[in-house]
Formats: sequence, structure tokens, C-alpha cells
Amino acid sequence: MNEIVLDSPLDMHLHLREGDMLKRVAKYSASSFSGAVVMPNLNPPVDSSERLESYKDEILRHCDGEVFEPYMALFFRDSLKESDLIKAKESGALIVKLYPKGATTNSQSGSEEILSSANKRVFEMISEVGLKLSIHGESNGFVLDREDEFLPIYEEIAKNFPKLGVVIEHMSTKNALDSLNKYENLSATITLHHIALSLDDLIGGALNPHHFCKPIIKTPHDRDALLEAALEANKKVCFGSDSAPHYRDKKECANGAAGIFSTPIALPFLAHIFDKHGKVQNLQKFVSDNAREIYGVNPPKKEVRIVKQESPIEAHYDEVVPLCAGKKLDWSIL
Amino acid sequence: MNEIVLDSPLDMHLHLREGDMLKRVAKYSASSFSGAVVMPNLNPPVDSSERLESYKDEILRHCDGEVFEPYMALFFRDSLKESDLIKAKESGALIVKLYPKGATTNSQSGSEEILSSANKRVFEMISEVGLKLSIHGESNGFVLDREDEFLPIYEEIAKNFPKLGVVIEHMSTKNALDSLNKYENLSATITLHHIALSLDDLIGGALNPHHFCKPIIKTPHDRDALLEAALEANKKVCFGSDSAPHYRDKKECANGAAGIFSTPIALPFLAHIFDKHGKVQNLQKFVSDNAREIYGVNPPKKEVRIVKQESPIEAHYDEVVPLCAGKKLDWSIL
Repeated sequence: MNEIVLDSPLDMHLHLREGDMLKRVAKYSASSFSGAVVMPNLNPPVDSSERLESYKDEILRHCDGEVFEPYMALFFRDSLKESDLIKAKESGALIVKLYPKGATTNSQSGSEEILSSANKRVFEMISEVGLKLSIHGESNGFVLDREDEFLPIYEEIAKNFPKLGVVIEHMSTKNALDSLNKYENLSATITLHHIALSLDDLIGGALNPHHFCKPIIKTPHDRDALLEAALEANKKVCFGSDSAPHYRDKKECANGAAGIFSTPIALPFLAHIFDKHGKVQNLQKFVSDNAREIYGVNPPKKEVRIVKQESPIEAHYDEVVPLCAGKKLDWSIL
Repeated sequence: MNEIVLDSPLDMHLHLREGDMLKRVAKYSASSFSGAVVMPNLNPPVDSSERLESYKDEILRHCDGEVFEPYMALFFRDSLKESDLIKAKESGALIVKLYPKGATTNSQSGSEEILSSANKRVFEMISEVGLKLSIHGESNGFVLDREDEFLPIYEEIAKNFPKLGVVIEHMSTKNALDSLNKYENLSATITLHHIALSLDDLIGGALNPHHFCKPIIKTPHDRDALLEAALEANKKVCFGSDSAPHYRDKKECANGAAGIFSTPIALPFLAHIFDKHGKVQNLQKFVSDNAREIYGVNPPKKEVRIVKQESPIEAHYDEVVPLCAGKKLDWSIL
């Protein structure tokens, strides 16, 4: 196969930032995808329907008129009321995103006790309103164990709120995949970098700060398990890039920011991987159909053409350095 | 105890580099230590007695007249002849250092097949001449498994060359410690950073390129096992800082160099750790007596005074950034 036409590809986990960075990067999502879930960890966070509406407007202003639906995410607070959730949903929210305090970029005001009674009250309301609870699930333990240590919490929530759709965001371990398959109401996003890279690509040769992210890329064993789930288009998973741009000087410094930028090459890179493993026929499911099913969305119609034509990953896109800069991909986006 | 007087402390694994960098850093070793094993991975490597002599002269020129003995290291080649080894020993070599090809800085010309018959011939000669075989023991596997995957090679050499002293350099895992204790003729150097830090200090918060090194700092479990061996002054181990300076722009960049700089604060940091664990009485053994026994050296007499007086680790020492910059130590060197 020398050409793939993707029908309304979706990125179910995306960071677009604000201001200057948003201006730089929004066009890459808008040109490649039909829609994307835009994360709310701005500073301050997107935690009200007013913030959410104005953020959505700001995003749309920088989409160069492309067909592109920003599915919005509301920052989880234990003070959220049912009316807040209803308004957020009306304003375009698809998920409520819960961050453990301090787990990643701009999560200082995240949740300190995930299973508190106040949180559980909000989980119940999210379920009733028909939003999804999306979680950056990491403990504050040893960096390689953080996701696995959080798995009992995912399971506890999935078990106690069987009508609540719970999303394991940027799933990064084989154990998480095992948890996922235990509960009907658990689903997961999988990034490009967690199926393409392992810790070797961060700290195995020279140190590559552009491959530093949270949750950290893990062992080849974990990577291969996630890759298999993606290649098989496991119905519990869908693509979410977690593309997270930072200015170069915030990455190449003494205290580098976490986040991998992948949007401009996400689809050709996925085509490259799926083709290499003889699974091109499953790409449509992984980058769109599964998400439609899991989230119940009907994205705007958009055909995206990927052709088998070698193209290198650029050193930077609008001064933001992507993963695997310089690598040659067998596929290009038209 | 508010003061420790160390009798001729030794650093059995040190990188001093050449030229400008050597000028910057040599004084920190010369003022803190009575002697140090200076590694030969320059570009080109120190692989002859001529190179070794001129390198030793260069080092001594930058020691500010301090009492300091550079114990030299000859870069391992499978072409080494017995006469080369004898000459190197006469020129001040204490060890022959074997690098697997590509394992770390300037190891491009390292050994491709560690247990080749040509290598074994040289191992035999090293044993006969009375030098030690020192090895950067890492496979080319997954970054966290490299040292453990190399352990069978250490054990094979120790078993087949029972009169050869073999040094596991910068030991970084609990499994290596277990191997070490199986063979009489195996010993190990332990760095400050492998007992003070874990992967969390590199990739657990913000990315800290100044904590990037090879072998990589590992799990808290590994760190604690090594720490215990150091605190107990296990007779098979001694201090080797593996202090490895790089210019800041070679660390804070898109492809950061491996190596942690620790010399200026190594002794007060060790005092801080040993004191915190109530083991100050074992510090002398760890930083000197054990090495004298293992290597059969009689270092020049030098008293180094460490006092219990808070001092911060500086942001840089001659523009080279150390580990844990900004951290307050309970001890200072006088």
C-alpha cells in the first residue's frame, strides 16, 4: 500500500498552550487532525466554562480556517458543582481532567487525595452529566513505578463508578494495559512516543531532553506491549499524542521541562510504524474509529492523505524541537 | 563528632581530561585527595607509556604544588605486549582500563569482544606484571540492564584469572554487589553519585542533565544497597568519584554528555552522608584504607580536615556544574 486516506483522524490528548506557543503549534493539529482533546493545564488552569469558552475561541482563531474540532477538557476540582459540569459540557467539554498535585506541567493545584469523599462526589456527578473522567495517573513514588502504583486507584474508581467512563491517559506500562482490560468502563490513550521509544532514547546514548516527558518513556518490554495494543487497534485504546511543546531553552537547560512535541509528524510516524509491522489496515481504528466509539463523538469530516514517500523529521517546527529530529520516516503527510 | 581528619584520602576513579578542562579541575582533586587513579579515555586514549608519562607531567603541572599522586591508567588494547605493560607500570600505571567499544566518553576504540582470545592473552600478562584490570562493565543492552548483563563477564574473568585483580568500576547495582562478593579477586569502586542519587534525581522531577552519567544512576533499591556497602566500608569496595567534568554547553543541550562532576564537594558530601547514618567512623576506610589494601598502594601523607559546618554546593566550580548544585551540606572541607 502506497497511500492511506485517513477518515477524520483524532488526537485524544493534546497540549496547545496559550499565546505565542499556541500560535506556533495549533496549525499542525488543525492541518493533520479532524479534532483533538485539548488539555486544561494552563496557568491558571481551565477550570470553568468561561475559561473553557474563551480558550476554545483562542484555539479556533489559530486554526487557519481548517476543519478542526477542539474537544475541551475541564480541570478537575473537588469543588465542582453539577451545574458547572453541565455548563462545561454545553461549552464543548468532553472530559474532566484530574491531575494529582505536582504530577506534571502546571499541576500545582491538582488533587492531593484522589479518593477523597469530595472527589468521589464529583466523580458521581461527572458520570451523571455524561462526561468522562480523564486522569494523569501517577503516584509520587520512584519515577519508573509511578504509573503502576496508581493502577489500584484507577481500578477502585472504575469498580465503584461503573457508569463513569475513566480514561488512563498516556498509558505507559504493560501493567496498565492489564488493568485496562479488567474493567469495561476503563479506556486509555496511547501516545506515539510511548510506542516508538524507550528509556534508551532518553538516557541510553547521549541525553536527549526532547524525549523527556511524564509519564516517562519506559522499558522496551512496556513499549512493545503498548505497541502491540496500538497495532491490533485494541478497542479499549485510541491515539492521544500528548504532544506537549516547550521552548527549546526550557528543554535544553539545567532543569528541563517535561513534554514531547510530536504533532507535525504524528500521523506519518504512525503510518511508518504500522506499515513496518504490516498493520496499516488498523491505523484508521487506532487514530479515529476507536475514539469515536469510546467517547461517543462524531468528528467533522476530513480526509487526511498519507503517502509512502520518505521524509525526514525536521530539526524543529516553528522553533519547537520534535521527537526523533533527523530520523527518516518512510511516510509523508500530503 | 564535629571534625574528621582524613589520612590521605584517595579517589580511585577520576577523569581530569586535558588542556583547559584539566587546568580548571585538577586543583580540586589535588587539594582534597592524596592521590587518584586518573582515567585514560582521552582523545586519543592514553595507550602507551609515552602518552602516560606526558599526561602525568601535565597533571602534576596543574596541581598547584599540592601533595598529590596521580596513579595512572593505561587504555586497554588487545595488542598490548608484556614489555608495554612493564614500561607502563614503571611510568606510574596502577591499572589497565578496559572499555567496551562505545560504552562511554571517548571509548570509540574500546574492545568489541571482551572475552576474545587476544584479550585473554593480555589479561594473563596484566596479571603477571602485577597491574589491575579495571573495567567499565556495561553491555550494549537496555540502559538499566547494562551493568547486570555484564556481570557474567566479570565473573568469567575473575574465575579464569584467579591471580588477576579485577575492578568493577563505578558499581551501580545491587546485583553487581552480589557478584563482587563471590570472587576473592574482584573489587569495586563506588561513586558518590551512585550512593547519593537515584534515577529520580535525573528524570523524576525536572530533567537534570548534570546528573546524567554512565553507568546511569539506578533505582532507590540499588542506591541503598551500594550505600550500605560504603557505610559498612565493605573491604571489597573503595571510593572512586568518577568525577567527569564537561563544559556546561555540552550538558545543557540536545545531546548531553555523560558524566557527573563531584570532586570539589566529594569529601564533605561523603562526611554528610556517613554522619547522617552514624557511620563517620567508617569514612577513613571507605576513602582510603580499603583502597590501600586492594591496590597495594602507599599514598603520600596528607591530612584533610572536614568540619561539621554547613556549606552549600556552589552553582558551579570554574564554570563546571556539580551534582546537587544548591544543596546544603552539613560538612565543609577546610
